[in-house]
Amino acid sequence: MPAAASPSNSSPHLLERQMKEDFPENPFADLEILKSRVDDLCARVPELDLELQVHYRRRLDALTKPVGSLGRLEELACRWACLRHPHLESIEKKCLLTFAADHGISSSGVSRYPREVTAQMVVNFLQGGAAISVLCRHYGIQNLIVDVGVDGDFPPHPHLQSHKVRRGTRHFLCGPSMTSREALETIETGVELARGCSQRGVGLIGCGEMGIGNSTSAAAVYAALTGMAPEEVTGRGTGVDDAGYARKLETIRSALVLHSGHLSHPLEILVSVGGYELAAILGLILGSAACTIPVVVDGYIASAAAALALGCCPLLREWLFFSHRSREKGHGRVLKWLGANPILDLDLRLGEGTGAAIAMDLISTSLHLMTEMATFEQAGVSREND
Amino acid sequence: MPAAASPSNSSPHLLERQMKEDFPENPFADLEILKSRVDDLCARVPELDLELQVHYRRRLDALTKPVGSLGRLEELACRWACLRHPHLESIEKKCLLTFAADHGISSSGVSRYPREVTAQMVVNFLQGGAAISVLCRHYGIQNLIVDVGVDGDFPPHPHLQSHKVRRGTRHFLCGPSMTSREALETIETGVELARGCSQRGVGLIGCGEMGIGNSTSAAAVYAALTGMAPEEVTGRGTGVDDAGYARKLETIRSALVLHSGHLSHPLEILVSVGGYELAAILGLILGSAACTIPVVVDGYIASAAAALALGCCPLLREWLFFSHRSREKGHGRVLKWLGANPILDLDLRLGEGTGAAIAMDLISTSLHLMTEMATFEQAGVSREND
Repeated sequence: MPAAASPSNSSPHLLERQMKEDFPENPFADLEILKSRVDDLCARVPELDLELQVHYRRRLDALTKPVGSLGRLEELACRWACLRHPHLESIEKKCLLTFAADHGISSSGVSRYPREVTAQMVVNFLQGGAAISVLCRHYGIQNLIVDVGVDGDFPPHPHLQSHKVRRGTRHFLCGPSMTSREALETIETGVELARGCSQRGVGLIGCGEMGIGNSTSAAAVYAALTGMAPEEVTGRGTGVDDAGYARKLETIRSALVLHSGHLSHPLEILVSVGGYELAAILGLILGSAACTIPVVVDGYIASAAAALALGCCPLLREWLFFSHRSREKGHGRVLKWLGANPILDLDLRLGEGTGAAIAMDLISTSLHLMTEMATFEQAGVSREND
Repeated sequence: MPAAASPSNSSPHLLERQMKEDFPENPFADLEILKSRVDDLCARVPELDLELQVHYRRRLDALTKPVGSLGRLEELACRWACLRHPHLESIEKKCLLTFAADHGISSSGVSRYPREVTAQMVVNFLQGGAAISVLCRHYGIQNLIVDVGVDGDFPPHPHLQSHKVRRGTRHFLCGPSMTSREALETIETGVELARGCSQRGVGLIGCGEMGIGNSTSAAAVYAALTGMAPEEVTGRGTGVDDAGYARKLETIRSALVLHSGHLSHPLEILVSVGGYELAAILGLILGSAACTIPVVVDGYIASAAAALALGCCPLLREWLFFSHRSREKGHGRVLKWLGANPILDLDLRLGEGTGAAIAMDLISTSLHLMTEMATFEQAGVSREND
């Protein structure tokens, strides 16, 4: 068992050493460049075409079923079709990106699992043995693993995209998780990945994550962004015990005090307490919308990136599908705060993109219904009496 | 527009004629034979093996994910595996049966659509243009259409099973919907269909329905079975208007008074106000459990058959998966009454088996996760700290 998981071993001594070695003089030096780049990306997010909505709504209403009787499936089909019009065939090409990164905070005993599990799980992803691997295989979704900050090395693999910024974020009780320069670099990775998907003809992108400690980082982001109390938005992640949960809450409370001068803008929150996976997903979302590809957001962690993205660009809302309500404490509350109505509620709390994968197939299903069902006219079925 | 849908046309004259022509002298003549046959079927329903549960629970806990983090998917996989043990490969063979039948009550203006739509939709099913056709194609589920009482004739078709009892039930404001002999015959049809599935190696059966007027019949069943007020368990079906909804409620209230002497046993309720589709689904559920095949129950109508079946045989509970909470008023309340926790909540209210098909694929997915994910040992991933 590594020293990392035991709080008595994550001594001030270690933290002090980390602080001296790792923290650059001015981590916010490039904040304005970062904000300006994100503003540029936001400006490229297209609005939803209301006339198209009427068009697809009419199409759905002509199908052999009572009006609206397919419920949320109709809503999913209509919105996706509007966003991808006229390229409906692109629903057949789906890609889910799982962003892996380590977290400085993992040395504070906030997780049930040791830090090395992040790298071990990346290997498991590449070998096809993880939950997300099975789901993507089952659904015919391409699954790319993106290393944006894992504390480990991997041989090249066709499903691995190596964009490591650093071997994990810094410990955010010693300073900001990352520099504004690193945030920018990681966001660009996400944007580039979206562009790659677009070039391959992908019509629906999913995002998930893996990284020991990342639920602590996401919880800190939620608390800073929504103003809710840490205990309202913080769960037990992979299942930390009572003592660990208390440490996790205390860590978040301390971080909010420490970084109080740098939490007024979503991008400052990202730099202060975020993870590389959040930066990358933020970039992916912005880049995807700019390439007119909707994104399916996974659970608790991915939603934190989506919340930051929406904080930068409310127009993104139409481009996002929130896949499920995680069992992780606080997720339901945050989704409500975002005004998001998740598609599924299956008590999942695994991450990786698992909820997103299931929702992606459901969106695909809804499209098949819209395009393959017969209309009343085609089938010779009598319409309603009134 | 046919006379059927207008209440002023469903005159006492018509009802009187129906009564004279159609109703046999003693519709309950074979009630004891019916009860005894159902008791025999109930006696063949196997109990769930608790040791198997421990076995599969352990298997799930060994997989590379935090314990329980796949939430309801773990519950689905574990239960299905226990029920089908050791034939886990049979999850690849799924069959969904859509039971079509007409209803005497449809002449009372309780539906938004005319009676002929039942037969027209059967043709649509066979041509592959209905929602359930698209879903089953998408998911690789065999879809059989079973005519147990449609007021129409169909040429032979490989997906059509013809077991017509009669061209629709009788009008249950004039007497019982069916005779006890017809109920028995229709239940046997369901049992036989289950046996056929078993012989083909099917590992998961879904049930749905189609039939103008069937939500009025199901609502009457719910009111009689649960003792809830008609307005608590009655919705608008395919979308009847306010006047039609008032007629629907009044019809159910009158039926409860008229049949008050024959509502004390689930099978009496079936005979008094049920539909042939409910009898067939009841038989299918009993027969499937006897053949050790779990059944996925669709929405509002199919749940009425499941409720009747559970009333006859509480042991059936473990063999049933309730697929979704329908948007149809009363379904959520009835599911709660049954203690059932539906898998999905997508605001569907179409029937045909649409919710069941989606849930069947989700159960299949959960099995793939259980059988294909790597264990901690296999993947060399460190286990939790504690």
